[in-house]
Amino acid sequence: MRFSRMFIPTLRETPAEAEAVSHILMLRGGFVRQLAAGLYIYLPLGWRVINRINKIIKEEMEAIGAQEISMPVLHPAEVWQQTGRWFDIKEEMFRLRDRCGRDMCLGMTHEEIITWLASTEIRSYRDLPQVWYQLQTKLRDEARPKSGVLRTREFLMKDSYSFDKDEAGLEENYQRHANAYHRIFSRCGLKFYQVESDPGMMGGAAAHEFMAPSSVGEDEIVLCGKCGYSANREIEKGDKCPKCGASLKAEKAIEIGNIFKLGTKYSLPLKAFYLDEKGNEKPVVMGSYGIGPARIAAAAIEQNNDKDGIIWHRGIAPFDVEILPLNMNNAEIMRIAESLYSRAGEEGFEVLMDDRNVSPGIKFKDADLIGIPYQIIIGEKNLKEGVVEFKSRKTREVKRLKPEEAAEKIKIECGG
Amino acid sequence: MRFSRMFIPTLRETPAEAEAVSHILMLRGGFVRQLAAGLYIYLPLGWRVINRINKIIKEEMEAIGAQEISMPVLHPAEVWQQTGRWFDIKEEMFRLRDRCGRDMCLGMTHEEIITWLASTEIRSYRDLPQVWYQLQTKLRDEARPKSGVLRTREFLMKDSYSFDKDEAGLEENYQRHANAYHRIFSRCGLKFYQVESDPGMMGGAAAHEFMAPSSVGEDEIVLCGKCGYSANREIEKGDKCPKCGASLKAEKAIEIGNIFKLGTKYSLPLKAFYLDEKGNEKPVVMGSYGIGPARIAAAAIEQNNDKDGIIWHRGIAPFDVEILPLNMNNAEIMRIAESLYSRAGEEGFEVLMDDRNVSPGIKFKDADLIGIPYQIIIGEKNLKEGVVEFKSRKTREVKRLKPEEAAEKIKIECGG
Repeated sequence: MRFSRMFIPTLRETPAEAEAVSHILMLRGGFVRQLAAGLYIYLPLGWRVINRINKIIKEEMEAIGAQEISMPVLHPAEVWQQTGRWFDIKEEMFRLRDRCGRDMCLGMTHEEIITWLASTEIRSYRDLPQVWYQLQTKLRDEARPKSGVLRTREFLMKDSYSFDKDEAGLEENYQRHANAYHRIFSRCGLKFYQVESDPGMMGGAAAHEFMAPSSVGEDEIVLCGKCGYSANREIEKGDKCPKCGASLKAEKAIEIGNIFKLGTKYSLPLKAFYLDEKGNEKPVVMGSYGIGPARIAAAAIEQNNDKDGIIWHRGIAPFDVEILPLNMNNAEIMRIAESLYSRAGEEGFEVLMDDRNVSPGIKFKDADLIGIPYQIIIGEKNLKEGVVEFKSRKTREVKRLKPEEAAEKIKIECGG
Repeated sequence: MRFSRMFIPTLRETPAEAEAVSHILMLRGGFVRQLAAGLYIYLPLGWRVINRINKIIKEEMEAIGAQEISMPVLHPAEVWQQTGRWFDIKEEMFRLRDRCGRDMCLGMTHEEIITWLASTEIRSYRDLPQVWYQLQTKLRDEARPKSGVLRTREFLMKDSYSFDKDEAGLEENYQRHANAYHRIFSRCGLKFYQVESDPGMMGGAAAHEFMAPSSVGEDEIVLCGKCGYSANREIEKGDKCPKCGASLKAEKAIEIGNIFKLGTKYSLPLKAFYLDEKGNEKPVVMGSYGIGPARIAAAAIEQNNDKDGIIWHRGIAPFDVEILPLNMNNAEIMRIAESLYSRAGEEGFEVLMDDRNVSPGIKFKDADLIGIPYQIIIGEKNLKEGVVEFKSRKTREVKRLKPEEAAEKIKIECGG
C-alpha cells in the first residue's frame, strides 16, 4: 500500500484526552479515533492489526476443532430473563424496546443465546462434544470507559463455548482452550500469565484469566517467584503463596482473555438437555472462553514501545515491512523502491511504501511511530555506494545491504 | 471437515414458519436458525457462505482502492440530529439511552459517522479522493421481518463511502463502484440487473440498485427488451420505455446492492470541508455504496435450487467438494476417501467428508440438500471396477473415474 494513498492521519502532538501510552500511540499513529465516550472507529492501520490478531485466533480455534458461527448483537429479553441475568445485571446492560414494545438488550456476552441454540439443536450424547465460536461485537455500558481501546463500551470479542456430556469432557475442552490461548498470546508476542480468578458474573465453578503485565492494567495479579503460582489479587488472601508459603509479588496487568467452567449454570434454566446412552435426560456441561483482540493490540503496545513510538511484533504488525525512499524525485531511488516493493508483494509480504513527497525526517518519525518491524531506507548517499539500509525497528540495528540482499533479508526476517 | 464432527443440523421436514424457498432450504440444510423475529444465528455452513461472499467483496473493494475501517454499531444521537435523520426516520431506528441518560441509536447505516470522521480528518484537496469501507452489522426495526435472511432486523452490510473534491471525482468513484459491483455479483454466480432508482432516505442526486430477479423479491423492476433500459418500478411512470418507446416488461427482484450519489447532503451539515488549491473552503462531495452479503446468499439460492435442495455456485459454496464414503466399515472405501480428502485439502480445496455412520440414502439426500457443487461418491459396487463417481450437483452428470482421475478432476472443476 502507498502511504500517500492510504488513510493514515498521523499526529505530531499528543491528544489531550489520551491516558495510557497505547492510547496516545494509537491516536498519534492514526490507528483509531474516538467517536464518543468508549466508542472507537478503527482506521485502516488499526483494523489491519485487529484482522491479523483475528486470523491468529481463528487458526488456533480451528486447530482445537471449534466451529465458527455468528449470533446477533440484539437479543430478546426472554432468554436473559430465564437465566436471571436480566435482573442481576444492572446499568452495565444496554436495554431498549422494539417498535412493538418488546424488551430487548444488546449482547454483553452470548452465553444465553448459545445455550438457547444448544437447547434447540443438541439432542443426544452423539451430538457431543461441540465447540462453537464467533468473533462478534459486544456492548457494555461501562461506568468509566477509559485508556483508549482498553475499556470501551463496544468491542469485538472472540467468544467460544464448549458443550460436553460431563465434567471430564469439560475439563478436556477447558485445557484445550487454555493451550490454544497460550499459543495465541505467544504468537501475538505478548508477555502474559495464566492466573486463577473469580468466575464473577459468569457464574460457574472455576475460572482463569490471561493477564499481560502492564503498568496501565486495571487488574492486579500476585505471582510466586518460587513455585510459579499465580492468581488475580481479588481472590488472593494474604501475601504468602498458598502452595509453597513463599512471599508473593504483585504486578499490574491487562486482562486479555478468560476461561470459565460454567457447568450447568446456563443449561439448566435454558433446558439444554441431551439424552445419554441409557436414554436419561441430562443437562449439557458447558464452558465459556473469551479473548479481546483490541486488548491484545493495546497490551502489545504497552509492552513494546519506546520514546519514538510502537514496536509491533511481526505476528500482528499492520505491515511486514515499510519502504522509505528518501527522495521521490531521484529516479534511481524510486526504481529500487518500486522493485523491492513489487518483489516483496509478489512473495506474499505486506508492504507499506512511504511515497509521500515529504522530508526524510518526517518519514523517519512516522515510520518509528507506526512501528512496522522492518524499514528499508533508500537514500542518495548510500546508493552511491550501491547499498540501502535495512533497519530493525526493535533493535534499531541498521544493516547496509545491496538491494538484492535486502530483498532476501525480508524473506528471512518476515517469512515463515 | 468431517460431517460427523461439524455442526450441521439438517432437517427432514419443512419448518412451519418458512416462506421463501431460500428460507426453507437454509433452515433445512442447517445454515441458519431464527432466534427471534428478524434475528438470525448463522450456523457453520451458513457462516462459511457469508465468509466466502465477504472475501469476494473485499477483494473487489481493495481492487478499486477502498480501505477497510470499522465503525461502531452504537451511535451518539448528536450526529444523527445534525443531519436531521434523527427526526426524519421514525420507528425503523432502534433508539436507547445510556446509563447517563444520553440519547443513542443503533446504526441503520453509517453516513453520519463516516462524515463525522471525514470532518475531523480531511483537511486539504491533497487528502482527496478517499474511499473507505467496512463490513459491519446494521440494525433496522423492520415492521415486518420476513423471508428468512432477506428482510431481517440485524444484518451484515458492506458499506463504502467515497470522498471527492467535485462532481467529476464522484462520478469516477461511482462508476468504479458500479463496475466492482458487477464483478462481485458475477463472481457470486447471480443473474442481476443494474437499475435506476430513487435515492429515498439517503437523499442525494442519483442512485442505482442491483437487482437479482426472483419471484420472492419485494421489489419490482421494469426492463426494456429493445434498448436494455431498466428501472425500479417505483420511479417508472407508464409502461413504455422512456428511451425508445418500446413496451416494458415487469419482473420481481431482490435488491442485493445499491449505490448513491450523495453530493454534499451529509458534508454540509456535518461540516466535512476541505481547502482547495486556492485555499477556499469547500464541502467534500460524497457517494455511498451498499451490499448485503446475506441477500446475495439468499438470492443465489432462489435462483439456483431444485426439488432436492440448494445448488451453490462454486464461488460462494460452503465447501468446494463433498466426499461420500457409502460404507464406513469398508476399509478400502475409507482408504480411498481419506486419500482423496487429504490430497484435495493439501491442494488448498475445502472438502467436506460425510463420515457419518448412516445409510447411503441419507448421505445422498443431505448432500443434495446442502448443495456443494461436486460430490465424490465411493461405493462398493463401483470400487470393484476400480472407480468412484464424480457428480455435479448442478447438472447431475455422473462420471465414473479412477480415484486418481477424480483427484485431478477436483483440480479442474474447482481450481483457478
